[in-house]
Amino acid sequence: MSIFIQQVQLNQKRSDILIEGSRIAAIGEKLTAAADQIIDGRELIAVPAFYNTHTHAAMSLLRGYADNLELMEWLQKHIWPAEAKMGAEHIYWGTKLACLEMIKSGTVFFNDMYFFPQRIADAVREMGMRAAIGMTTLEASPNAELIRQNNEAIWANRAKLPKTITLTLAPHAIYTVCGETLAKLADFASRENLKISIHLSETQGEVEQCKADHNGMTPVEYLDSLGFLSEKVVAAHAVHLTDSDMQLMAARKAAIAFNPCSNMKLLSGLMPFRKMSDAGVNVTIGTDGNASNNSLSMFDEMKAAAITAELSAQTTTACTAEEIFTAATRNGANAFGLDAGEIAPGKLADLMLLDAHTPCLVPSHNLLSNLVYSADSSCVNTVICDGRILMQNRQVPGENEIIDKATEYAAML
Amino acid sequence: MSIFIQQVQLNQKRSDILIEGSRIAAIGEKLTAAADQIIDGRELIAVPAFYNTHTHAAMSLLRGYADNLELMEWLQKHIWPAEAKMGAEHIYWGTKLACLEMIKSGTVFFNDMYFFPQRIADAVREMGMRAAIGMTTLEASPNAELIRQNNEAIWANRAKLPKTITLTLAPHAIYTVCGETLAKLADFASRENLKISIHLSETQGEVEQCKADHNGMTPVEYLDSLGFLSEKVVAAHAVHLTDSDMQLMAARKAAIAFNPCSNMKLLSGLMPFRKMSDAGVNVTIGTDGNASNNSLSMFDEMKAAAITAELSAQTTTACTAEEIFTAATRNGANAFGLDAGEIAPGKLADLMLLDAHTPCLVPSHNLLSNLVYSADSSCVNTVICDGRILMQNRQVPGENEIIDKATEYAAML
Repeated sequence: MSIFIQQVQLNQKRSDILIEGSRIAAIGEKLTAAADQIIDGRELIAVPAFYNTHTHAAMSLLRGYADNLELMEWLQKHIWPAEAKMGAEHIYWGTKLACLEMIKSGTVFFNDMYFFPQRIADAVREMGMRAAIGMTTLEASPNAELIRQNNEAIWANRAKLPKTITLTLAPHAIYTVCGETLAKLADFASRENLKISIHLSETQGEVEQCKADHNGMTPVEYLDSLGFLSEKVVAAHAVHLTDSDMQLMAARKAAIAFNPCSNMKLLSGLMPFRKMSDAGVNVTIGTDGNASNNSLSMFDEMKAAAITAELSAQTTTACTAEEIFTAATRNGANAFGLDAGEIAPGKLADLMLLDAHTPCLVPSHNLLSNLVYSADSSCVNTVICDGRILMQNRQVPGENEIIDKATEYAAML
Repeated sequence: MSIFIQQVQLNQKRSDILIEGSRIAAIGEKLTAAADQIIDGRELIAVPAFYNTHTHAAMSLLRGYADNLELMEWLQKHIWPAEAKMGAEHIYWGTKLACLEMIKSGTVFFNDMYFFPQRIADAVREMGMRAAIGMTTLEASPNAELIRQNNEAIWANRAKLPKTITLTLAPHAIYTVCGETLAKLADFASRENLKISIHLSETQGEVEQCKADHNGMTPVEYLDSLGFLSEKVVAAHAVHLTDSDMQLMAARKAAIAFNPCSNMKLLSGLMPFRKMSDAGVNVTIGTDGNASNNSLSMFDEMKAAAITAELSAQTTTACTAEEIFTAATRNGANAFGLDAGEIAPGKLADLMLLDAHTPCLVPSHNLLSNLVYSADSSCVNTVICDGRILMQNRQVPGENEIIDKATEYAAML
């Protein structure tokens, strides 16, 4: 399977891009190549696609279900009761809706943390995306046994998953999973070469409770004391880290998923982007779930990230558009061991083609600034993942059925 | 001229909408009507269009020209030198680009403050939008004489403007226009029944300087001492108002244009939405110009407004999606004396038709929440202004020429 993109705008000049199999085979000014599919790139701009490093995709069924409430009222009276009604088919159609929204806004990969992982994997495979699927551990949940059974089922099925889907471990947080389990999971991840996701230091309350429960240690210090922190870890939120927490995360090569919209909407706090980056932590970007954002668009998230960087540092020079775009693309790919996030020969063929005539991309004094501050999903014409076209001319195969089914399953909640 | 929209989703049920001339003539479940144009609304949702109450449209040519700099470096080394090169044709094509971006994202009206008002008016008329065009007063500028001549020219031409375009007075700010001139302009606005725009209390520095210069008065108190504040005034930004400033604005029936993206990106501060609304001030929403946002999408602005409301009040209950949407629609229309901002018989026919199958609008637990937190321009299928279709199926007549010309004029800067 091969794709030949002719005369596309790439790094401010016209290039041809040849994709063979999963990878970019060649880039040149006047390539000649036979290919199964040819794309006329003359009105298009090629850029890396997005890697969404923290979400709960199926929560898309709860988009707009409850907003602007106190956190505990939101969780206890609205989100948890609705989630209790969600079975495997809700998860499947909710994930498909999320995949559709992500593809439409240029995202090819997401790191998911939710329930019924086999049905999540089915949805991802059918949509052609990449995903890291977290087998959530949540010891305090009444559904703990069901979660455990589901996790065992997908684990047994691991060898049959396509190469674009990996399984991760996903202990929910330090306040829902005990230290002994966290240590075991870290050990298992090390032996099996798995990534681990966890919600970390999302609120100041979590930090204070951790200090009270664990001899004054911050959540980062506590996790490190358990031997949990390593290059396997992608920690979501990481809003309330001390300077030494950041240094520890960098020393252990743990990455973080920055979720600026969710953090502002839920008033969790402002993640200090500048300090975190300067400490050497790999900062990636995630959208969090649609119940708390309420969008999976990485365009929204990049603008919020840049604004959060400024607000937290209280300077307009706190970041550059290039840093934010890199966080949303290459940093996320790297965190999950994907040789992607840039358009170069040999890299995985994950990219989007933007319509150069979209007004929000004009003029083109600075393409990356336009992408971070101005663009939205309307400028994404084509999305290619692992060498396959997932969307062309903004059309995704089967989208009407997904919308109808997701609407139907959401109405049951 | 008449338009018949059949079986569209309106306020959660199916309705027909008949538009005759500039206004909505009838709404009903099964209307029968002959019309010049018929729109099949079965896959569409009708909502009021947006009113952008503060922008500098032609600065679209400077989108992405300079970001993430210190304010004075940004202005003195980048923006002012570029603006000095902008002639009437730059303004015309820059405004056309801005109109195109606004139409594509559901906006039908903007309140502009810039130079060469006649060419702004030409662009607006050709694009079919509504606008209030501000004849900028900027006494400190080296271009003051040129500005004065331009203002006189459009004033002489006032009677020939279409009814969708009004002229306003637009003294730039209290620190660029002297008190005597401000008082004269307010008096003139009162006699001629004109709206007045002004940048007000945008930064803490402006407030401090005003207090130092004017016997400890805040900018709001200073303007009131000049007899400036009235229902004619739409003040942009209004970030740093005291409680008594807010009460004074409400008592004088002055409106404000909330510019959350610009205020956060330039670190001007967080406008206290909850307090301002509770004080009784008419809060409208504007995008500011593309040099400081860098988008004219009111979707971006609504999400930023909701987030700013929460950050400034430090509570997740600081606003509702309905309040934010109303600020972006009806409040803006009202501030400019337009009988619009809701879809009801007799109102001006300004509305957008959304594609109900856009993933970011699904599910539809709460349409207004989806519009504020999740939607982007990709969901806007059709835009109608003053009873005329400006965009249908996301196509705007002449858009490729606008993109090409704007690109060409931007490259000269």
